[in-house]
Amino acid sequence: MKKLLIASTSTLHGSAYLAYLLDELTVFFQSTETIVFIPYARPSGLSHDAYTKIAETAFQKINKKIVGLHEFDDPIQALKDAEGIFVGGGNSFVLVDQLHRKNIMNTLRSVVNSGTPYLGTSAGSNICGISMGTSNDMPIVHPPSFETLGVIPFNINPHYLDPLLESKHMGETRATRIKEFHFFNTQAVVGLREGSFLEVIGEQIVLKGPLNARVFEHHKAPYEISSGTDLSDLH
Amino acid sequence: MKKLLIASTSTLHGSAYLAYLLDELTVFFQSTETIVFIPYARPSGLSHDAYTKIAETAFQKINKKIVGLHEFDDPIQALKDAEGIFVGGGNSFVLVDQLHRKNIMNTLRSVVNSGTPYLGTSAGSNICGISMGTSNDMPIVHPPSFETLGVIPFNINPHYLDPLLESKHMGETRATRIKEFHFFNTQAVVGLREGSFLEVIGEQIVLKGPLNARVFEHHKAPYEISSGTDLSDLH
Repeated sequence: MKKLLIASTSTLHGSAYLAYLLDELTVFFQSTETIVFIPYARPSGLSHDAYTKIAETAFQKINKKIVGLHEFDDPIQALKDAEGIFVGGGNSFVLVDQLHRKNIMNTLRSVVNSGTPYLGTSAGSNICGISMGTSNDMPIVHPPSFETLGVIPFNINPHYLDPLLESKHMGETRATRIKEFHFFNTQAVVGLREGSFLEVIGEQIVLKGPLNARVFEHHKAPYEISSGTDLSDLH
Repeated sequence: MKKLLIASTSTLHGSAYLAYLLDELTVFFQSTETIVFIPYARPSGLSHDAYTKIAETAFQKINKKIVGLHEFDDPIQALKDAEGIFVGGGNSFVLVDQLHRKNIMNTLRSVVNSGTPYLGTSAGSNICGISMGTSNDMPIVHPPSFETLGVIPFNINPHYLDPLLESKHMGETRATRIKEFHFFNTQAVVGLREGSFLEVIGEQIVLKGPLNARVFEHHKAPYEISSGTDLSDLH
Protein backbone atom coordinates (compact mmCIF):
# COMPACT_ATOMS: atom_id res chain seq x y z
CA MET A 1 0.00 0.00 0.00
CA LYS A 2 1.44 3.35 -1.05
CA LYS A 3 2.51 5.68 1.74
CA LEU A 4 3.75 9.15 0.89
CA LEU A 5 4.18 12.51 2.47
CA ILE A 6 4.50 15.16 -0.25
CA ALA A 7 5.50 18.52 1.21
CA SER A 8 5.65 21.94 -0.46
CA THR A 9 8.88 22.86 1.32
CA SER A 10 11.46 21.38 3.71
CA THR A 11 11.76 24.55 5.71
CA LEU A 12 9.44 27.28 6.94
CA HIS A 13 10.77 30.82 7.25
CA GLY A 14 12.63 31.26 10.54
CA SER A 15 12.61 27.59 11.56
CA ALA A 16 15.06 24.72 11.16
CA TYR A 17 15.20 22.21 8.30
CA LEU A 18 12.13 19.91 8.50
CA ALA A 19 11.27 21.27 12.00
CA TYR A 20 7.59 21.88 11.21
CA LEU A 21 7.19 18.28 9.98
CA LEU A 22 9.04 16.35 12.70
CA ASP A 23 5.93 15.36 14.71
CA GLU A 24 4.31 14.12 11.54
CA LEU A 25 7.46 12.28 10.47
CA THR A 26 7.75 10.49 13.82
CA VAL A 27 4.43 8.81 13.08
CA PHE A 28 5.03 8.46 9.34
CA PHE A 29 8.38 6.70 9.75
CA GLN A 30 7.29 4.78 12.90
CA SER A 31 8.42 1.40 11.51
CA THR A 32 11.51 2.77 9.78
CA GLU A 33 14.93 2.86 11.39
CA THR A 34 17.05 3.94 8.44
CA ILE A 35 15.94 6.25 5.65
CA VAL A 36 17.68 6.36 2.29
CA PHE A 37 18.16 10.01 1.33
CA ILE A 38 18.38 11.05 -2.33
CA PRO A 39 20.53 14.23 -2.43
CA TYR A 40 20.60 14.62 -6.23
CA ALA A 41 18.69 17.94 -6.40
CA ARG A 42 21.73 19.73 -4.90
CA PRO A 43 20.22 22.98 -3.51
CA SER A 44 22.69 25.86 -3.95
CA GLY A 45 25.00 23.32 -5.59
CA LEU A 46 25.62 21.49 -2.27
CA SER A 47 27.67 18.31 -2.51
CA HIS A 48 25.83 15.05 -1.93
CA ASP A 49 27.73 14.54 1.32
CA ALA A 50 26.98 18.02 2.65
CA TYR A 51 23.29 17.75 1.75
CA THR A 52 22.99 14.30 3.32
CA LYS A 53 24.52 15.73 6.51
CA ILE A 54 21.72 18.31 6.70
CA ALA A 55 19.07 15.60 6.41
CA GLU A 56 20.94 13.50 8.98
CA THR A 57 20.99 16.34 11.52
CA ALA A 58 17.24 16.86 11.20
CA PHE A 59 16.34 13.17 11.46
CA GLN A 60 18.62 12.60 14.47
CA LYS A 61 16.04 14.58 16.45
CA ILE A 62 13.53 11.77 15.95
CA ASN A 63 16.13 8.99 16.18
CA LYS A 64 16.21 8.00 12.53
CA LYS A 65 19.37 7.11 10.68
CA ILE A 66 19.98 8.67 7.25
CA VAL A 67 22.15 7.17 4.54
CA GLY A 68 22.77 8.92 1.21
CA LEU A 69 21.88 7.00 -1.95
CA HIS A 70 25.21 8.18 -3.44
CA GLU A 71 27.03 6.11 -0.80
CA PHE A 72 25.85 2.79 -2.29
CA ASP A 73 27.70 0.98 -5.06
CA ASP A 74 24.35 -0.25 -6.37
CA PRO A 75 21.73 2.48 -5.91
CA ILE A 76 19.00 0.42 -7.56
CA GLN A 77 19.45 -2.42 -5.07
CA ALA A 78 19.68 0.14 -2.24
CA LEU A 79 16.24 1.48 -3.17
CA LYS A 80 14.79 -2.03 -3.36
CA ASP A 81 16.15 -2.73 0.13
CA ALA A 82 15.20 0.65 1.62
CA GLU A 83 12.90 0.80 4.67
CA GLY A 84 12.05 4.41 3.85
CA ILE A 85 13.02 7.06 1.28
CA PHE A 86 13.43 10.82 1.46
CA VAL A 87 13.98 12.93 -1.66
CA GLY A 88 15.08 16.45 -0.76
CA GLY A 89 14.52 19.68 -2.67
CA GLY A 90 16.86 21.72 -4.82
CA ASN A 91 16.79 21.92 -8.58
CA SER A 92 14.18 19.64 -10.21
CA PHE A 93 16.05 19.58 -13.54
CA VAL A 94 19.18 18.26 -11.85
CA LEU A 95 17.18 15.74 -9.81
CA VAL A 96 15.14 14.42 -12.74
CA ASP A 97 18.19 14.34 -15.00
CA GLN A 98 20.06 12.16 -12.48
CA LEU A 99 17.09 9.85 -11.84
CA HIS A 100 16.74 9.20 -15.57
CA ARG A 101 20.43 8.95 -16.40
CA LYS A 102 21.13 6.58 -13.51
CA ASN A 103 18.06 4.50 -14.49
CA ILE A 104 16.61 5.03 -11.03
CA MET A 105 13.22 6.51 -11.93
CA ASN A 106 11.52 3.17 -12.66
CA THR A 107 12.87 1.46 -9.55
CA LEU A 108 11.86 4.40 -7.38
CA ARG A 109 8.33 4.31 -8.84
CA SER A 110 8.11 0.60 -8.29
CA VAL A 111 9.22 0.58 -4.63
CA VAL A 112 6.95 3.53 -3.81
CA ASN A 113 4.01 1.75 -5.44
CA SER A 114 4.90 -1.34 -3.41
CA GLY A 115 4.65 0.58 -0.14
CA THR A 116 8.10 1.86 0.83
CA PRO A 117 7.32 5.06 2.80
CA TYR A 118 8.36 8.11 0.77
CA LEU A 119 8.92 11.66 1.95
CA GLY A 120 9.38 14.36 -0.67
CA THR A 121 9.99 18.07 -0.17
CA SER A 122 9.89 20.69 -2.93
CA ALA A 123 11.66 19.09 -5.95
CA GLY A 124 11.22 15.72 -4.20
CA SER A 125 7.46 16.40 -4.16
CA ASN A 126 7.35 17.73 -7.69
CA ILE A 127 8.58 14.35 -8.99
CA CYS A 128 5.63 12.51 -7.41
CA GLY A 129 3.39 13.94 -10.13
CA ILE A 130 3.06 12.85 -13.73
CA SER A 131 5.75 15.24 -14.94
CA MET A 132 8.09 17.96 -13.70
CA GLY A 133 6.26 20.34 -16.03
CA THR A 134 5.06 22.51 -13.14
CA SER A 135 8.44 22.97 -11.50
CA ASN A 136 9.54 26.50 -10.55
CA ASP A 137 13.19 25.80 -11.12
CA MET A 138 15.78 27.08 -13.58
CA PRO A 139 16.64 24.72 -16.47
CA ILE A 140 20.33 24.49 -15.59
CA VAL A 141 20.71 20.99 -17.10
CA HIS A 142 18.70 19.23 -19.84
CA PRO A 143 17.04 16.00 -18.61
CA PRO A 144 16.32 13.40 -21.30
CA SER A 145 12.65 13.51 -20.28
CA PHE A 146 10.37 15.55 -17.99
CA GLU A 147 8.41 12.43 -17.04
CA THR A 148 8.47 11.73 -13.31
CA LEU A 149 7.16 9.08 -10.90
CA GLY A 150 3.43 9.49 -11.50
CA VAL A 151 2.64 7.91 -8.12
CA ILE A 152 -0.17 10.46 -7.81
CA PRO A 153 -2.47 11.15 -10.79
CA PHE A 154 -1.85 14.90 -11.04
CA ASN A 155 1.02 17.41 -10.93
CA ILE A 156 2.42 19.33 -7.96
CA ASN A 157 3.46 22.96 -7.94
CA PRO A 158 5.52 23.28 -4.75
CA HIS A 159 6.18 26.63 -2.99
CA TYR A 160 2.92 27.86 -4.48
CA LEU A 161 2.86 31.64 -4.39
CA ASP A 162 -0.16 33.90 -4.71
CA PRO A 163 0.20 36.88 -7.06
CA LEU A 164 1.82 39.86 -5.30
CA LEU A 165 -0.83 42.51 -5.86
CA GLU A 166 1.50 45.44 -5.18
CA SER A 167 4.20 44.11 -7.53
CA LYS A 168 5.21 46.11 -10.60
CA HIS A 169 7.26 43.18 -11.93
CA MET A 170 6.04 41.99 -15.31
CA GLY A 171 7.27 38.37 -15.11
CA GLU A 172 4.42 35.86 -15.26
CA THR A 173 2.56 35.03 -12.03
CA ARG A 174 2.50 31.41 -10.91
CA ALA A 175 -1.16 31.18 -11.93
CA THR A 176 -0.36 32.43 -15.46
CA ARG A 177 2.43 29.88 -15.77
CA ILE A 178 0.09 27.05 -14.79
CA LYS A 179 -2.49 28.37 -17.24
CA GLU A 180 0.18 28.14 -19.96
CA PHE A 181 0.97 24.58 -18.78
CA HIS A 182 -2.65 23.68 -19.47
CA PHE A 183 -2.37 24.69 -23.11
CA PHE A 184 -0.05 21.72 -23.59
CA ASN A 185 -1.00 19.29 -20.78
CA THR A 186 -4.29 18.10 -19.31
CA GLN A 187 -3.48 16.82 -15.81
CA ALA A 188 -4.65 18.80 -12.78
CA VAL A 189 -2.08 20.80 -10.79
CA VAL A 190 -2.15 21.23 -7.03
CA GLY A 191 -0.44 24.44 -5.88
CA LEU A 192 0.89 23.59 -2.41
CA ARG A 193 1.67 26.63 -0.26
CA GLU A 194 4.65 26.42 2.09
CA GLY A 195 3.46 24.54 5.19
CA SER A 196 1.04 22.30 3.26
CA PHE A 197 1.59 18.67 2.43
CA LEU A 198 -0.30 15.77 0.90
CA GLU A 199 -0.62 12.50 2.74
CA VAL A 200 -1.07 9.49 0.49
CA ILE A 201 -2.21 6.18 2.01
CA GLY A 202 -2.99 3.62 -0.67
CA GLU A 203 -5.13 5.44 -3.21
CA GLN A 204 -6.32 8.07 -0.72
CA ILE A 205 -4.74 11.51 -1.05
CA VAL A 206 -5.53 14.14 1.59
CA LEU A 207 -4.37 17.75 1.97
CA LYS A 208 -2.75 18.36 5.38
CA GLY A 209 -1.21 21.28 7.23
CA PRO A 210 -2.69 24.62 8.30
CA LEU A 211 -3.30 26.18 4.86
CA ASN A 212 -5.61 25.95 1.88
CA ALA A 213 -4.20 24.74 -1.43
CA ARG A 214 -5.08 25.97 -4.93
CA VAL A 215 -6.23 23.49 -7.55
CA PHE A 216 -5.90 24.07 -11.28
CA GLU A 217 -7.92 21.70 -13.45
CA HIS A 218 -7.81 21.71 -17.23
CA HIS A 219 -10.57 23.91 -18.68
CA LYS A 220 -11.83 24.97 -15.22
CA ALA A 221 -11.39 28.10 -13.14
CA PRO A 222 -8.81 27.56 -10.35
CA TYR A 223 -10.27 26.98 -6.90
CA GLU A 224 -9.25 26.74 -3.24
CA ILE A 225 -9.48 23.61 -1.10
CA SER A 226 -9.16 23.47 2.67
CA SER A 227 -6.94 21.24 4.76
CA GLY A 228 -8.48 17.78 5.09
CA THR A 229 -9.84 17.75 1.53
CA ASP A 230 -9.70 14.35 -0.14
CA LEU A 231 -8.04 14.62 -3.56
CA SER A 232 -8.19 10.95 -4.48
CA ASP A 233 -10.42 11.61 -7.51
CA LEU A 234 -8.43 14.52 -8.90
CA HIS A 235 -6.59 13.88 -12.14
CA MET B 1 27.32 43.17 -39.26
CA LYS B 2 25.18 41.92 -36.39
CA LYS B 3 22.48 44.27 -35.14
CA LEU B 4 20.39 43.29 -32.16
CA LEU B 5 18.28 44.85 -29.49
CA ILE B 6 17.91 42.42 -26.59
CA ALA B 7 15.32 43.66 -24.07
CA SER B 8 14.46 42.33 -20.63
CA THR B 9 10.74 42.85 -21.15
CA SER B 10 8.28 43.97 -23.81
CA THR B 11 6.20 45.95 -21.38
CA LEU B 12 6.82 48.17 -18.38
CA HIS B 13 4.27 48.21 -15.58
CA GLY B 14 1.44 50.62 -16.40
CA SER B 15 2.46 51.28 -20.01
CA ALA B 16 1.50 49.79 -23.38
CA TYR B 17 3.23 46.92 -25.17
CA LEU B 18 6.70 48.06 -26.36
CA ALA B 19 5.83 51.71 -25.55
CA TYR B 20 9.07 52.40 -23.66
CA LEU B 21 11.14 51.13 -26.63
CA LEU B 22 9.37 52.82 -29.54
CA ASP B 23 11.80 55.75 -29.91
CA GLU B 24 14.70 53.33 -29.88
CA LEU B 25 12.95 51.03 -32.37
CA THR B 26 12.28 53.88 -34.80
CA VAL B 27 16.04 54.29 -35.15
CA PHE B 28 16.85 50.58 -34.90
CA PHE B 29 14.44 49.60 -37.68
CA GLN B 30 15.08 52.76 -39.75
CA SER B 31 15.79 50.81 -42.95
CA THR B 32 13.13 48.15 -42.32
CA GLU B 33 9.59 48.39 -43.66
CA THR B 34 8.30 44.96 -42.73
CA ILE B 35 9.31 42.96 -39.67
CA VAL B 36 8.81 39.21 -39.43
CA PHE B 37 7.37 38.41 -36.00
CA ILE B 38 7.97 35.03 -34.37
CA PRO B 39 4.97 34.40 -32.08
CA TYR B 40 5.95 30.88 -30.97
CA ALA B 41 6.45 31.68 -27.26
CA ARG B 42 2.67 32.10 -26.87
CA PRO B 43 2.34 34.19 -23.66
CA SER B 44 -0.73 33.08 -21.69
CA GLY B 45 -1.29 30.49 -24.43
CA LEU B 46 -2.21 33.20 -26.98
CA SER B 47 -2.76 31.98 -30.53
CA HIS B 48 -0.14 32.96 -33.09
CA ASP B 49 -2.65 35.22 -34.83
CA ALA B 50 -3.70 36.98 -31.63
CA TYR B 51 -0.11 37.50 -30.54
CA THR B 52 0.93 38.81 -33.95
CA LYS B 53 -1.96 41.30 -33.77
CA ILE B 54 -0.51 42.72 -30.53
CA ALA B 55 2.89 43.22 -32.14
CA GLU B 56 1.21 44.74 -35.19
CA THR B 57 -0.69 47.30 -33.10
CA ALA B 58 2.50 48.42 -31.37
CA PHE B 59 4.55 48.73 -34.55
CA GLN B 60 1.81 50.62 -36.42
CA LYS B 61 2.72 53.57 -34.16
CA ILE B 62 6.10 53.80 -35.87
CA ASN B 63 4.77 52.85 -39.32
CA LYS B 64 6.23 49.37 -39.53
CA LYS B 65 4.40 46.40 -40.98
CA ILE B 66 4.38 43.13 -39.02
CA VAL B 67 3.88 39.69 -40.54
CA GLY B 68 3.78 36.53 -38.46
CA LEU B 69 6.27 33.78 -39.29
CA HIS B 70 3.40 31.26 -38.95
CA GLU B 71 1.74 32.87 -41.98
CA PHE B 72 4.47 31.66 -44.36
CA ASP B 73 4.41 28.27 -46.07
CA ASP B 74 8.21 28.20 -45.89
CA PRO B 75 9.33 29.83 -42.62
CA ILE B 76 13.00 29.14 -43.33
CA GLN B 77 12.86 31.05 -46.62
CA ALA B 78 10.81 33.77 -44.90
CA LEU B 79 13.63 34.31 -42.38
CA LYS B 80 16.23 34.39 -45.13
CA ASP B 81 14.18 37.07 -46.93
CA ALA B 82 13.29 39.07 -43.80
CA GLU B 83 14.28 42.75 -43.55
CA GLY B 84 13.95 42.59 -39.77
CA ILE B 85 12.95 40.05 -37.10
CA PHE B 86 11.15 40.36 -33.77
CA VAL B 87 10.89 37.42 -31.37
CA GLY B 88 8.33 38.14 -28.64
CA GLY B 89 8.24 36.82 -25.09
CA GLY B 90 6.14 34.12 -23.49
CA ASN B 91 7.34 30.67 -22.53
CA SER B 92 10.98 29.96 -23.47
CA PHE B 93 10.44 26.18 -23.46
CA VAL B 94 7.65 26.48 -26.01
CA LEU B 95 9.68 28.92 -28.12
CA VAL B 96 12.89 26.86 -28.09
CA ASP B 97 10.96 23.65 -28.69
CA GLN B 98 9.34 25.10 -31.81
CA LEU B 99 12.58 26.62 -33.13
CA HIS B 100 14.32 23.26 -32.86
CA ARG B 101 11.44 21.10 -34.12
CA LYS B 102 10.79 23.33 -37.12
CA ASN B 103 14.56 23.40 -37.85
CA ILE B 104 14.51 27.18 -37.62
CA MET B 105 17.22 27.72 -34.97
CA ASN B 106 20.16 27.40 -37.38
CA THR B 107 18.62 29.65 -40.02
CA LEU B 108 17.73 32.27 -37.43
CA ARG B 109 21.30 32.23 -36.09
CA SER B 110 22.68 32.51 -39.58
CA VAL B 111 20.55 35.50 -40.68
CA VAL B 112 21.20 37.34 -37.42
CA ASN B 113 24.93 36.77 -37.79
CA SER B 114 24.65 38.09 -41.35
CA GLY B 115 23.11 41.35 -40.15
CA THR B 116 19.32 41.07 -40.26
CA PRO B 117 18.19 43.43 -37.46
CA TYR B 118 16.80 41.39 -34.55
CA LEU B 119 14.63 42.55 -31.68
CA GLY B 120 14.05 40.16 -28.78
CA THR B 121 12.01 40.69 -25.65
CA SER B 122 12.02 38.37 -22.63
CA ALA B 123 12.03 34.79 -24.05
CA GLY B 124 13.08 36.32 -27.38
CA SER B 125 16.11 37.80 -25.58
CA ASN B 126 16.85 34.67 -23.59
CA ILE B 127 17.43 32.76 -26.85
CA CYS B 128 20.18 35.18 -27.95
CA GLY B 129 22.46 33.59 -25.35
CA ILE B 130 24.31 30.31 -25.51
CA SER B 131 21.47 28.37 -23.90
CA MET B 132 18.02 28.86 -22.39
CA GLY B 133 19.49 27.56 -19.12
CA THR B 134 18.81 30.84 -17.32
CA SER B 135 15.16 31.14 -18.30
CA ASN B 136 12.61 31.89 -15.57
CA ASP B 137 9.85 29.94 -17.27
CA MET B 138 7.92 26.82 -16.40
CA PRO B 139 8.95 23.65 -18.28
CA ILE B 140 5.54 23.06 -19.87
CA VAL B 141 6.98 21.26 -22.90
CA HIS B 142 10.25 19.32 -23.33
CA PRO B 143 12.49 20.84 -26.04
CA PRO B 144 14.95 18.41 -27.68
CA SER B 145 17.79 20.74 -26.61
CA PHE B 146 18.28 23.87 -24.47
CA GLU B 147 20.86 25.22 -26.92
CA THR B 148 19.87 28.60 -28.35
CA LEU B 149 21.23 31.12 -30.88
CA GLY B 150 24.52 31.97 -29.21
CA VAL B 151 24.70 35.26 -31.10
CA ILE B 152 26.13 36.79 -27.92
CA PRO B 153 28.83 34.93 -25.94
CA PHE B 154 26.97 34.75 -22.59
CA ASN B 155 23.51 33.99 -21.22
CA ILE B 156 20.64 36.37 -20.48
CA ASN B 157 18.39 36.28 -17.45
CA PRO B 158 15.46 38.49 -18.46
CA HIS B 159 13.09 40.13 -15.94
CA TYR B 160 15.96 40.05 -13.46
CA LEU B 161 14.56 40.45 -9.97
CA ASP B 162 16.48 41.44 -6.84
CA PRO B 163 15.81 39.37 -3.72
CA LEU B 164 12.73 40.61 -1.84
CA LEU B 165 14.25 41.28 1.58
CA GLU B 166 10.93 41.25 3.41
CA SER B 167 9.80 37.98 1.82
CA LYS B 168 9.14 34.92 3.97
CA HIS B 169 8.86 32.72 0.88
CA MET B 170 11.44 29.92 0.84
CA GLY B 171 11.63 29.39 -2.93
CA GLU B 172 15.10 30.14 -4.33
CA THR B 173 15.99 33.74 -5.18
CA ARG B 174 17.04 34.53 -8.73
CA ALA B 175 20.65 34.92 -7.56
CA THR B 176 20.62 31.45 -5.94
CA ARG B 177 19.23 29.94 -9.14
CA ILE B 178 22.00 31.52 -11.21
CA LYS B 179 24.56 30.30 -8.66
CA GLU B 180 23.17 26.76 -9.18
CA PHE B 181 23.41 27.30 -12.96
CA HIS B 182 27.14 27.93 -12.51
CA PHE B 183 27.68 24.54 -10.93
CA PHE B 184 26.89 23.00 -14.31
CA ASN B 185 27.72 25.77 -16.82
CA THR B 186 30.56 28.25 -17.19
CA GLN B 187 29.22 31.10 -19.35
CA ALA B 188 28.54 34.48 -17.75
CA VAL B 189 24.92 35.52 -17.14
CA VAL B 190 23.61 39.06 -17.46
CA GLY B 191 20.58 39.75 -15.27
CA LEU B 192 18.63 42.40 -17.19
CA ARG B 193 16.15 44.33 -15.05
CA GLU B 194 12.89 45.40 -16.67
CA GLY B 195 13.61 48.55 -18.67
CA SER B 196 17.17 47.49 -19.58
CA PHE B 197 18.29 46.24 -22.95
CA LEU B 198 21.50 45.32 -24.73
CA GLU B 199 22.39 46.88 -28.03
CA VAL B 200 24.61 44.73 -30.22
CA ILE B 201 26.35 46.32 -33.22
CA GLY B 202 28.81 43.93 -34.82
CA GLU B 203 30.82 42.50 -31.93
CA GLN B 204 30.10 45.44 -29.63
CA ILE B 205 27.56 44.82 -26.87
CA VAL B 206 26.44 47.76 -24.72
CA LEU B 207 23.97 47.96 -21.81
CA LYS B 208 21.25 50.55 -22.46
CA GLY B 209 18.25 51.92 -20.63
CA PRO B 210 17.97 53.72 -17.28
CA LEU B 211 19.02 50.89 -14.94
CA ASN B 212 22.07 48.96 -13.82
CA ALA B 213 22.33 45.29 -14.69
CA ARG B 214 23.76 42.47 -12.58
CA VAL B 215 26.51 40.27 -13.98
CA PHE B 216 27.21 36.75 -12.78
CA GLU B 217 30.52 35.29 -13.89
CA HIS B 218 31.65 31.75 -13.14
CA HIS B 219 33.72 31.62 -9.94
CA LYS B 220 33.31 35.37 -9.27
CA ALA B 221 31.09 37.37 -6.94
CA PRO B 222 28.16 38.96 -8.83
CA TYR B 223 28.56 42.66 -9.61
CA GLU B 224 26.58 45.63 -10.91
CA ILE B 225 27.26 47.46 -14.16
CA SER B 226 25.84 50.82 -15.15
CA SER B 227 24.06 51.76 -18.35
CA GLY B 228 26.56 52.37 -21.14
CA THR B 229 28.90 49.58 -20.01
CA ASP B 230 30.56 47.71 -22.86
CA LEU B 231 30.10 43.96 -22.43
CA SER B 232 31.88 42.88 -25.60
CA ASP B 233 34.55 40.95 -23.67
CA LEU B 234 32.19 39.14 -21.31
CA HIS B 235 31.84 35.42 -21.83
